[in-house]
Order: sequence, then C-alpha cells, then structure tokens
Amino acid sequence: MKIERCPLNPILTCEDVKPSSEEFKVVGIFNCGTATYHGETILLCRVAECVRDTDEKTLGVPVVVRGDDGDSHIEVKIFSKDDPKYDFSDSRKVTQIGYGKTSVAALTSLSHLRVARSKDGIHFTVEDHPFVMLDPFYEEWGMEDPRITQIGDKYYIDYVSVASFGVTTSLLCTRDFENFERLGVIFAPENKDVAIFPEKIGSLYYALNRPVPDGIGQPNIWLANSPDLIHWGDQKLLTSVSTADSWDSTRIGGGAVPVRTSRGWLVIYHGADRNDNYFLNAMLLDLENPTRILGKLSTPLLKPEEEYERIGFYDNVVFSCGVVAEEDVLRIYYGAADDKICMAEASISELLDALLS
Amino acid sequence: MKIERCPLNPILTCEDVKPSSEEFKVVGIFNCGTATYHGETILLCRVAECVRDTDEKTLGVPVVVRGDDGDSHIEVKIFSKDDPKYDFSDSRKVTQIGYGKTSVAALTSLSHLRVARSKDGIHFTVEDHPFVMLDPFYEEWGMEDPRITQIGDKYYIDYVSVASFGVTTSLLCTRDFENFERLGVIFAPENKDVAIFPEKIGSLYYALNRPVPDGIGQPNIWLANSPDLIHWGDQKLLTSVSTADSWDSTRIGGGAVPVRTSRGWLVIYHGADRNDNYFLNAMLLDLENPTRILGKLSTPLLKPEEEYERIGFYDNVVFSCGVVAEEDVLRIYYGAADDKICMAEASISELLDALLS
Repeated sequence: MKIERCPLNPILTCEDVKPSSEEFKVVGIFNCGTATYHGETILLCRVAECVRDTDEKTLGVPVVVRGDDGDSHIEVKIFSKDDPKYDFSDSRKVTQIGYGKTSVAALTSLSHLRVARSKDGIHFTVEDHPFVMLDPFYEEWGMEDPRITQIGDKYYIDYVSVASFGVTTSLLCTRDFENFERLGVIFAPENKDVAIFPEKIGSLYYALNRPVPDGIGQPNIWLANSPDLIHWGDQKLLTSVSTADSWDSTRIGGGAVPVRTSRGWLVIYHGADRNDNYFLNAMLLDLENPTRILGKLSTPLLKPEEEYERIGFYDNVVFSCGVVAEEDVLRIYYGAADDKICMAEASISELLDALLS
Repeated sequence: MKIERCPLNPILTCEDVKPSSEEFKVVGIFNCGTATYHGETILLCRVAECVRDTDEKTLGVPVVVRGDDGDSHIEVKIFSKDDPKYDFSDSRKVTQIGYGKTSVAALTSLSHLRVARSKDGIHFTVEDHPFVMLDPFYEEWGMEDPRITQIGDKYYIDYVSVASFGVTTSLLCTRDFENFERLGVIFAPENKDVAIFPEKIGSLYYALNRPVPDGIGQPNIWLANSPDLIHWGDQKLLTSVSTADSWDSTRIGGGAVPVRTSRGWLVIYHGADRNDNYFLNAMLLDLENPTRILGKLSTPLLKPEEEYERIGFYDNVVFSCGVVAEEDVLRIYYGAADDKICMAEASISELLDALLS
C-alpha cells in the first residue's frame, strides 16, 4: 500500500513553539488531534516541555500543584542523578526501583495542548499559549495525545490525563477552539488511545479505547459504547496484540478518529514491537457493527524510516491521533520520534481496496 | 470498634458444596454477594474448583472453551511442574517468566457463582448447580466476587470476568435468582471490586470501582456514575492506598454494597498489606455527595486472626462482597482465607459513632 510523506516534513518542530513559561524549553510538539473549522485545518498538538536550566548532576521535572490560594501553578521537582533509588535510562520518565515491581516516579517532561491553524493543511501557525490549563489533580503530570471528534457544531476532545495515581482519559468540548467545557474523566486508569466515532451507530456512540491491565492481559484495543459520550460501557475486546514477535506484539492502540467511508469505518491505529518501536497500520470496521473487523493491512502502513522518525525525544516512533479526509485523499497527521509533527497522504480508495483484498 | 464473629464460623465450607462436574473438586466457597429475597437471605457465592485427578509432577488447570458446536465446555490444560518457564509458588496462579515483566499464564482454579439460601442468615443450603454458565470468551478463566444491588424488584449482580486477555467487571440482572439477563462488560480491564449503590443520588447511579493500572499509579478506589447502570463515567479518585507501610499500603478496594444510613453511606471495604494479608475496614460517605468521605476507622474493623481466616487456600484473608443490615445490626458476610464463608456482626449506630468521632 502506497503512502506519500509530505515533502516538507516535519511540518512542525520545537522551533515553531513558544514555551508556556520562561522556565521551560519546548522538547516536543507531536501527537495531534485534527479538525476542520471555518475553512482551516486545526491541529490540537501535544506540546512537551522540560525545565530549561538544569545541570548535569540533577534532573528537574515540572509538575502542576495547587497553591494555597486555590490556583494551580507549576513547580520543579529535583532528582539527583546519582540517587540509586531511581533509573534515568528512559528519556521519558524516572523509574523508582522499589520492592516488588518498579514504578514511575516522574515524567521528565510536562505536556499540554496547543492549537495550531493552517489554511492549506501544511503550513501551520502555533498559538502562543496553551489551549487548556492543566488540572492540578488529574493532570499534575500533564495532558497528552488529544483526539478530536466533530459531532454537529461541537468538537469533543478526548485526551490523556496523567497523574501520579494513574493515567486516565478525559473529555472536553469546544465549539470554537477558544472556550471549552470540561466533561470529566471518562475512562478509569490505565486507559488511553481513545478515539470516539463521529456519529451514533444505532442509538449509541462508540469509542475505541486501550486499557493497560496490570496482572493478567495485554494492552489491546477495546470498543465501548455510550448514550451521551460521558458514560461508557458494554466493553468488547476488538483486537489483540500479536502473539508472534512482530511490529504489534507489545502493544496496540486506537489512533485517529475513525473515518466513515462507503465500505466501512477506516481506522488508523498504532502498534509497538518489543523494542518499543511504533508503527501505524489501518483496519476497516463494519459500518453497522463496528465490533466486526472487515480487514487489516498485513504489513504496517507507515514505519519509522525517515531520519525525523528515527531520531528524536524518543526514537523510532510514528504515532497518529488524527486524520483529515477530503474526497479520495486521507491526510494522516502523525507524531515523529515524540518531538515533531509530520503528515503523509494515502488514497482512500486504494486503502479500502487493500483492506478488503 | 467491637465486631462479633458468628460462633458457628465458618458458616459455609467446601464440604457444603457439590462439584459442578465429576472431574473437579471444590477448593473454595468464599466472597459472596448478599440479598434478601422472599424472606430468605441469599448468598451468591464464588465457588472455586480444581482438577480432581492430578499427580505430583503436573498441574491441570480448568479453562472454559467454545467447542465447534458453539457450546462451551471445560477443558483441562496441563503444566509440568518442572517447566522452568513457569513459577508455581502462588497457590492461586501459574506465572510465566518472560522477557520484561512476568505474566499470568493460568489460574489454578476456576470459579463460578452459586446460590445459597437461608431462613436465619446463618444456616445455608447451597444449590447443586452454578447460577450462570461461564462465558467461553470473557470468562474463560472464571467468574469471581459478585456483589448484589437491589433496585426495586431487580437484583443487579456485578462480578469479575476473568480471561487470559484481561480482568473486567460485568453485570447481570435477575428478579428471582433463577433466570437472569447478561448486561455485558461494564468496566474495562483491569477493574474489579465494583459496588453499585442501591439508589440514584440526584439523577445518577454511583459505583465504587478499583482499577489496577500497569505503569503509573496504584490499585485505588474510584467512584463512577451512570444514567443506566450499564454505561459509566465521570470517574473520580475516592481514596488511595497508604503511602506508609500499613494494612492498606498495597491495595484497597470496594467491598460490600454501600448501606444507606441516616448519617451517610456506610461502606465496608478491604485493604492488603505488603505481605498480601487482607483486612476489612469501614468508611462513611456523604449521602448527597458520595465523593466526600466523612470518616474512616483508623484501625481495621476485621483482621485475619482466627485459624479459619489465617489458614486456607490463600492464607490471611478476610474479604467482603456483601452485608445485610437489619435495624441496628450489620451482618458482614466475608470470605476467609479464600476458601470459606464467615459472618460477623456489628452495631450500625456504634459503627457510625466510631466513624464520625
């Protein structure tokens, strides 16, 4: 299956983003939800920031706290890199070496959501300020990986809320990408990679979700339904990681919001292999019964091959939270190596042919 | 706080239960939901069975499979105890030693739900057959730990569905403890210890639930709400494990279905320490706003102290899924050492005084 990367890739990098505060430097703009609004393409981007001034012996990590005045602000927590209690080998997190299993003590960066706008879908301008302030409780460690589902004139944004006590998926609603309403935590920890379908099927809404169980089971894709987008149930296992050593043997997860086509719901999703390299693939779900998979590509649609996908904040990652479909063209926006935004195009009809062959 | 164990404890043991098939032996009757129906006390018990004929060198574990005819039946999977790929040291499970983290390869027993009836709440007769056949997909490894919530003339039963791909909570509904309707998986893996409140608060139903995250966070108690008992959202963290080394530092979870009292929702819940010893405690939640904790006992209400609580299929466990409140008496039914059912009584007014002192 042919997929064409945009010749201008990456289309957004850290240099295009103003830090949210003087204390920080931007270390990534990636994993963006997509929407069209007033003739423009909107990317709601995950922007990751680290503490700017840090020496070689220590690591400062930003966390959101609620002050005595009730307002939230960001504080820097300092780790000594000599401290034998912690493992600093993963660029994304600090791991505590405890009795029994290890646990995550901190993330090295703090992510928030930022709006970027474009007239042509390729040249984007990133706003100077975060779209939403982080909640000091459920988002003390950040907001990540938004997906935007347009239903009528409302845009529902689900995103990952990260706190020391768990990784949940929450929901926001906006009509104009300026004002918003918070709709709470919709999936208990640990659950992310939620993609809400853009219309009801029968009398219910549907969403892909990717719970991560602790004791028994794997990070697989489940499908839930809802009467109101806030309350979800009737969970069904949609598809599982490969049992063979493969591109999708460690974890899989919903990616972009599904696109309605004449032949089924087109879903771009991700998988990771045992080396934590991330790939994109496509599957097609039955229009009336989305628990039924009509087809999957047998090899990944997109692999981390270009230098900008292979080298970055976290190497060898392509990861999508949103696409834009226009006539026969599917524009797949994706995070590359956890620090840049890229775009690739595929023909929808060719993709459907490949999925159903 | 005074609590009195029933002098006849344990009130149900393996000897009281007929195996569901000749191949099996009953190794536990424990963790039961409670209801009153037609003047009787009903316990919906978790009954665990192992393969009867097994030699010293092998371990046979029962799993549910769907046959070619579409019907489900139980098959025995054989492990060699010499196999270096597996760890057999936990009486409850077989652990696979893989690259990265360990994973559960099988449970040593298969649990199903069984109805027991009593006129006096102490002397019970256990029915000869399972209440519900196991689903060969979501319940291939069993049904566990039911909680019964009576709403009008319907009894909603949530219980743990165990499969190789994850531990979920599902819902059933019955009016007569003979016929039932399946209502699907209500919480994605890994989530158990769900206790649904027996009436709406405002316009919504509420449920305690205990997700177990993999990477970040601990097994804490969350509170969700629902318009219809099937779809759940608006998850809020209710209370967390102790950070100090204590009876509740490893995990906590909802226990019995909350009891409405004049001073708040009375909740019996459990905690486990770092040695996996399980304790029961009580907390009180605000009647109108159950996210607000009015009080908790500072030391556990019930510890595994009696021999029947200390020694069994899994030692040092007291674990409740249901209580029966009548006037000032709270009868707490609980599993002891994962193989017997016991009962203890407390005065509700004394408990409320202790919780609010």
